[in-house]
Amino acid sequence: MNGEPNDIDLRAGEVAIELPAATDAGVYFIGTIHTPWRVRSACPKRGSPDGPICSIVVGSRWRAALTDIVRHKRIQVLYWMHRARRDLVLQTPLSTGATTGSFALRSPVRPNPIASSVVELVGVEDTTLQVRGLDCLNGTPLIDLKPERTAH
Amino acid sequence: MNGEPNDIDLRAGEVAIELPAATDAGVYFIGTIHTPWRVRSACPKRGSPDGPICSIVVGSRWRAALTDIVRHKRIQVLYWMHRARRDLVLQTPLSTGATTGSFALRSPVRPNPIASSVVELVGVEDTTLQVRGLDCLNGTPLIDLKPERTAH
Repeated sequence: MNGEPNDIDLRAGEVAIELPAATDAGVYFIGTIHTPWRVRSACPKRGSPDGPICSIVVGSRWRAALTDIVRHKRIQVLYWMHRARRDLVLQTPLSTGATTGSFALRSPVRPNPIASSVVELVGVEDTTLQVRGLDCLNGTPLIDLKPERTAH
Repeated sequence: MNGEPNDIDLRAGEVAIELPAATDAGVYFIGTIHTPWRVRSACPKRGSPDGPICSIVVGSRWRAALTDIVRHKRIQVLYWMHRARRDLVLQTPLSTGATTGSFALRSPVRPNPIASSVVELVGVEDTTLQVRGLDCLNGTPLIDLKPERTAH
């Protein structure tokens, strides 16, 4: 799907471009996110601290990198929206019907489909984190975890 | 440098692992960040809204994706920390001397060296954004721009 503009799937006003011939850097999938949502239409529009507990399973290679993460109550999670096309520069979200630039939206559809969510850390056991506040599909690849630095 | 643990560069307590043989997804560098800081030691530890105006130049291929970005005062910027090694799971920051897991730090050194900053958008002209709040090296590759959704 990526890199193959399919005009048939475009909504009114949407514009697909030709992607560059090659990427510039590579990302490791360092774990997997487990959520209750099996299809995109079931995902909440935005994660909530009152949402269900989801789990993040980090690959065993990275186990030591989790040292001390439990000291942080709020964690920024970066993940890869592996189902999203990457070639739309203008999009028309169904929710608004307004055509807007991809960088003025938080849609999964963007040149680099990286999402950032802030979650509440409920618990850690070995390489599994229990968190609240995610809104992504079950099986989404994890790419980073960092302490969130804002206080709220 | 990446993928080649160089034990000579490790501080006390730091641990390097063998990285996976291949990456799982590719990132496009969609622009370049221009800042006053030419070496890492000159970068502020954290960007400030009172900091200098920096510019973000987006590649012309993505021009249309900037449509309506000017409506947003606060933008989340994702960028690639291209100088950082990726193989340390335990690190000993000079500032604290305490050995800590990479996912419990916001250090550039991590499996996927993606940074996230929230900036104040000062102005947009064609494909150049003027912003305040960055703390990265001059020449850092840009990977995403999104409206920040928190109100503050």
